[in-house]
Amino acid sequence: MKPQIVTFLIKCPDQKGLLAKITNFFYERSFNIVSCQQYVNATENTYFMRIRLDAEGAEISRVVLENSFVELSEPLQIDWSVYYGDDRQNVAIMVSHTSHNLYDLLSRNKEGLLDCNVKLIISNHDKLRHIAEMFNVPYYYLPVTKDTKEAQEAQVMKLLDDNEIDLTIMARYMQILSSNFINKYPERIINIHHSFLPAFQGANPYKKAYERGVKLIGATAHYATEDLDEGPIIEQDVEPVTHESTPFTLKRIGADIEKLVLARAVKNHLNHQIIVSGNRAIVFPEAGE
Amino acid sequence: MKPQIVTFLIKCPDQKGLLAKITNFFYERSFNIVSCQQYVNATENTYFMRIRLDAEGAEISRVVLENSFVELSEPLQIDWSVYYGDDRQNVAIMVSHTSHNLYDLLSRNKEGLLDCNVKLIISNHDKLRHIAEMFNVPYYYLPVTKDTKEAQEAQVMKLLDDNEIDLTIMARYMQILSSNFINKYPERIINIHHSFLPAFQGANPYKKAYERGVKLIGATAHYATEDLDEGPIIEQDVEPVTHESTPFTLKRIGADIEKLVLARAVKNHLNHQIIVSGNRAIVFPEAGE
Amino acid sequence: MKPQIVTFLIKCPDQKGLLAKITNFFYERSFNIVSCQQYVNATENTYFMRIRLDAEGAEISRVVLENSFVELSEPLQIDWSVYYGDDRQNVAIMVSHTSHNLYDLLSRNKEGLLDCNVKLIISNHDKLRHIAEMFNVPYYYLPVTKDTKEAQEAQVMKLLDDNEIDLTIMARYMQILSSNFINKYPERIINIHHSFLPAFQGANPYKKAYERGVKLIGATAHYATEDLDEGPIIEQDVEPVTHESTPFTLKRIGADIEKLVLARAVKNHLNHQIIVSGNRAIVFPEAGE
Amino acid sequence: MKPQIVTFLIKCPDQKGLLAKITNFFYERSFNIVSCQQYVNATENTYFMRIRLDAEGAEISRVVLENSFVELSEPLQIDWSVYYGDDRQNVAIMVSHTSHNLYDLLSRNKEGLLDCNVKLIISNHDKLRHIAEMFNVPYYYLPVTKDTKEAQEAQVMKLLDDNEIDLTIMARYMQILSSNFINKYPERIINIHHSFLPAFQGANPYKKAYERGVKLIGATAHYATEDLDEGPIIEQDVEPVTHESTPFTLKRIGADIEKLVLARAVKNHLNHQIIVSGNRAIVFPEAGE
Repeated sequence: MKPQIVTFLIKCPDQKGLLAKITNFFYERSFNIVSCQQYVNATENTYFMRIRLDAEGAEISRVVLENSFVELSEPLQIDWSVYYGDDRQNVAIMVSHTSHNLYDLLSRNKEGLLDCNVKLIISNHDKLRHIAEMFNVPYYYLPVTKDTKEAQEAQVMKLLDDNEIDLTIMARYMQILSSNFINKYPERIINIHHSFLPAFQGANPYKKAYERGVKLIGATAHYATEDLDEGPIIEQDVEPVTHESTPFTLKRIGADIEKLVLARAVKNHLNHQIIVSGNRAIVFPEAGE
Repeated sequence: MKPQIVTFLIKCPDQKGLLAKITNFFYERSFNIVSCQQYVNATENTYFMRIRLDAEGAEISRVVLENSFVELSEPLQIDWSVYYGDDRQNVAIMVSHTSHNLYDLLSRNKEGLLDCNVKLIISNHDKLRHIAEMFNVPYYYLPVTKDTKEAQEAQVMKLLDDNEIDLTIMARYMQILSSNFINKYPERIINIHHSFLPAFQGANPYKKAYERGVKLIGATAHYATEDLDEGPIIEQDVEPVTHESTPFTLKRIGADIEKLVLARAVKNHLNHQIIVSGNRAIVFPEAGE
Repeated sequence: MKPQIVTFLIKCPDQKGLLAKITNFFYERSFNIVSCQQYVNATENTYFMRIRLDAEGAEISRVVLENSFVELSEPLQIDWSVYYGDDRQNVAIMVSHTSHNLYDLLSRNKEGLLDCNVKLIISNHDKLRHIAEMFNVPYYYLPVTKDTKEAQEAQVMKLLDDNEIDLTIMARYMQILSSNFINKYPERIINIHHSFLPAFQGANPYKKAYERGVKLIGATAHYATEDLDEGPIIEQDVEPVTHESTPFTLKRIGADIEKLVLARAVKNHLNHQIIVSGNRAIVFPEAGE
Repeated sequence: MKPQIVTFLIKCPDQKGLLAKITNFFYERSFNIVSCQQYVNATENTYFMRIRLDAEGAEISRVVLENSFVELSEPLQIDWSVYYGDDRQNVAIMVSHTSHNLYDLLSRNKEGLLDCNVKLIISNHDKLRHIAEMFNVPYYYLPVTKDTKEAQEAQVMKLLDDNEIDLTIMARYMQILSSNFINKYPERIINIHHSFLPAFQGANPYKKAYERGVKLIGATAHYATEDLDEGPIIEQDVEPVTHESTPFTLKRIGADIEKLVLARAVKNHLNHQIIVSGNRAIVFPEAGE
C-alpha cells in the first residue's frame, strides 16, 4: 500500500477494551495513528470511532487489510467502512433556479477546497446552464411535471449510476424526490434547507420566518430521507435579523448562511467525518487536517 | 417639567410628512430630540417611531404636553404612549425550580443594569426562597394544583395589582397561565422559552433537541399570549452544540443563553424600545443610551 | 426628476431643531421620506444623518434640489453628499494570488446582489486571469517591483481614472499602496485584512494567530489610509477555532470570513450607508432595503 | 479504589504505538475508558492526551496505579498528571471594584455548576464585601499601595497556601501581580482581560476599542504569566457592537462576555480539560460529561 491516509469509520456496541483492541490491530500492522476520535452514546450503549492512519511503512494490501479487519470486527459486532485517501470522489449537483450554492460549490472545488470531481449538474430548469459552462461541467436539463416525475427520476438515477456518483448534492433543487429515489442512495444525498430545522419545515421558510417575527434566521444541511426535512442534520448556522428585514432581505441574508452550511456539510461528508446513528449525525471535527 | 428623558412610542398609518409634523411638534415646544428611530412596514403601510426627548428647557407640564399631543395625533390616527425617565418601574418575577434566571436578574438589578424595583418573587414551590432572601426581595410561595389553579391565579393577580406591577417576568415559571390571566396584562408579561422558537414548542425542548440531533440550541424571550409559545418574539440567541452533548449538557449550555436572552428582553422592555404589531415585536436598538 | 430613491448623507455640529429643519425641507418639496437614520456623537457634539427620499411627486431638478440644500446647509454648517438611485457605480478590483474574494465578489455581482459595474480587475500577477475571463471582466496584469512601483501605481491610477472608478476594492492585493495613491481616493478604497484588527496588523496574521493560540480568528474590512491597517473599520467578523487548527487550516477557515466581511463592506459602501468621522466609520444598517 | 472518574493528562514526543501502549495499560488494569482525546502537534512532534477512566472494577490503589504509570511513562518521555473525581478543588477569587464576574462565579457554584470550594475572596478594596456575605464566603480586604505591594502579596500568598488553594481566579482584580507571585503558581492563576487579546492589551480596553471604532468587542480568559496579558489563552468570545456604542455601553455589553468567558475557562480548568504547551493552551472539549 503506498503512503496515504486511510480512514476507518466504526460503530458497535460499547464494551470494555475496544480502544485497546482496535489500536493494537493497527499498531501490529505498522500503521501510524494520525488521529483517533471517539464518541460513546451511553444511553444507547453505542461506540463510534473515526480513526485515520498513515499507511507509510505498512506493507499490506487493501484486500488483506480489510479481510483481517473483518476478523477483528465480527466478535465485537463492528459496523465499519474504510476510505483510502487517493480515491477521489465523484459528485453530482442538482439545482433549480437559485444560483448562490452552485457558484459557491464550484468555485470552492476549483480552489481545491472540496477535492472532488464534480461530474455533472442536473436541473429541472435550463436557467443555470451558463454557470455550468463557466466552470466546464456538463449540465443536464431534465424538466419534470407531475406526469413525468417517475421517468425523469429514472433519467437522473441513470446519470448518477453511469457517472459512478458517490455524493449527490441538492443545492436548492426545488423538487421532492420520491422514496424510491431517496432510498436508493442512503446517506449519499445531502440537501440544504433554508431554515433552522425543525422550525419552518416545507415551503417558503423565509416568508414564514418573517411572519413569525423571529430574530435569527438559519439554514440546515441534512441527509435526505423519506420524510421531508427530517433527515439527520449535518450542519446548521444562523444569522441575527431585525424587524427591518423583509422576506426579500431575509432571503438575501439567508443565502450566505446556506452557502456556508452546505459547503461545510459537503466537506465533512467527503472527508469521512460523519457516522449516522438513527436520526442523528455524529460529525467529528477535523483533527489537524 | 424637570430635566429628564421623555420617550414616545408611536404607531400609525404611513403618510407623507409624518416625520416633519412630529419633530416640529417637539421642536416648537423646545424639546431637544436625543434620538428618533423609525420603522415603516411597507406591506401593511404602517409607521412606527420611538423618539426620545431631552425635556431640559421645555417649560411644559405632563398634562399639557399629553393634551397637545392628542390634538396632533388624532387626525394622523396615531396610537401612542409616553414614558418619563424618572418613573421607575415595578417588576414581579415568577419562578418554579430553576434558579439561573433568577440569580441573573437579581444580580443585574443590584448592579444597576435593569433600573427597576423588583417588588416580589412568586413561586409555586418553596425551593428558591433562599435566593429571594439573599437579595432581600419578598417571596410568595403559592402552590398550585389543577383544582386550585383559578384561586392561585387570583392570588397572583391580587399581588401584582396591590404592588402596582408594570412588568411580570416568567423566569422559568413552569405553569401555563390561563387566558384570563394573560389577557389582563397584554404586553406586560415576558416569558423565556428554552428553545429557538418556533422549534420545539411546549415541554422538554432540550430532550427534543437532543433527539432531533440539532447542531445549535437556543432560547427565546417573548410576550406571553393566549397561544402558548406563540407570542411576539423579543429576543433570541443560540449556541453551537455537538453530538457529544447529552440532554443534561444541553440544559446546562442552554441556561447561559436563557440568561442573556431574558435579561436583554427585559432591558429592552423597561427601556421602552419595543412596539408590538400583530404578532411581531418591533425592537429598536439602543440609541447611544 | 423621475421616480427614484435619493440618498443624502449629512454631518454637522449637533444643535436643536436639526431634524425638524431637514425633514421640513424635504416635506415642503414633496419628497416622501422612506427612511431617516441618525446618530449623535455626544462627546464630539456631532450629528450624522442618512435620509432616503422617494422622489416620486417631487417636481424638482437635481440642480435646483442641490442649490436649495446648499442654502439650508450653510447656516447649520452641514457637510453633505447626495446620491441618485439610478447612478450605477463603477468598481475596480485589485488582487494578487488569492482567489476566494474575487470569485465571491464577481458571482455576487452576477447575481445582482452588489448592483455595480465591475469595470476591471488589476493584478500584480497573471495568475487569476482565468477567473476574469470566466466573468468577462477585463484583466490588467501590471507587475511591480521596488523600482517600478511608482510607474506601476501611475498606470493603475490612469486605469481607475479612465474608467471613472467610484470604488476600488483591494481583494487581497498584497502590495502596500503609496500615500500618494491612497490620498488621491479618500474613502474610495476598501481593503480586507485577514485578522480581527487591531490584532495581528501587518503580514502573516494567520501564522501570528496560531502562535498566539487565539480561540477565534477574524477579518476586517476598512477604508485604506496612509497608516497601514489603521483606516476606519467598516465590517468585522470572527469564527471560533481550536488548538487543532494549523496555520493552513486557519487560512482556510479565515477565507470564508474574509468573503463575508468584504462583501458586506462593499455593499454598505455602494448603498451609501457609511459616513466617516475621524478614524471611525458610522455604518447605518439597511432600513427595509 | 472506589468507583469514580480518574483523569490523566499526558504530554510527550509523538511516536508510533503511543495510543495502543497507553490504552493497553489501562485495559490490563481493568479500567473502562470513558473518553480518550488526543492532539498531535505535527510541527513540534508533540503528542497530547486526555483520558478519562471509570475506576469501577479496577482493584488498584492510587499509589500502585501511579507507580506503574511511572514505569510506562519513562521510556516514552511522558509528562503526566492524574486527577481523581472525588477530590474537590479549592478556589480563591480576587476582585477589585467590579462585581459581575463575582456574582456570576458564586451563583454558578451555588447551582452546582463549577463543583469547587470557593474558600475565600480577596480584594484590595472593601467594596464587594456584601456579595461575599450574601454567599457566605470569607472576604479579605487587603489594600495595596506601591510601598505595601510586597507585603500585601505576601499576605495573599499566605492565605492561598493556608487554604490549600488549587486555583486562583483574578475576576477583574485590577492590580498587576509581581513575577514572584505569578511564578509561584504556574497554570494555577486564571485572569480575565476585557478585550479580544492580543488587541487592546493593558489598561482601558473598552475606551481603546471605542476610539479604534471596532465592530466587535471581546473578552479573553488566560493563565497569568510574567508578561502581562501574554499568557496562554483558554477562552475568548466576542459580541457585535455598532457606532452607537459609547465606551460606557461597551463596558456593559462586555460584562456579559466576560462572565461567560471566565466561567467557561474556570470550568475547563477545574474539569482537567487543559494542557499548556509553550504559550498555547490545548483545551479539550467536554466528552459527554
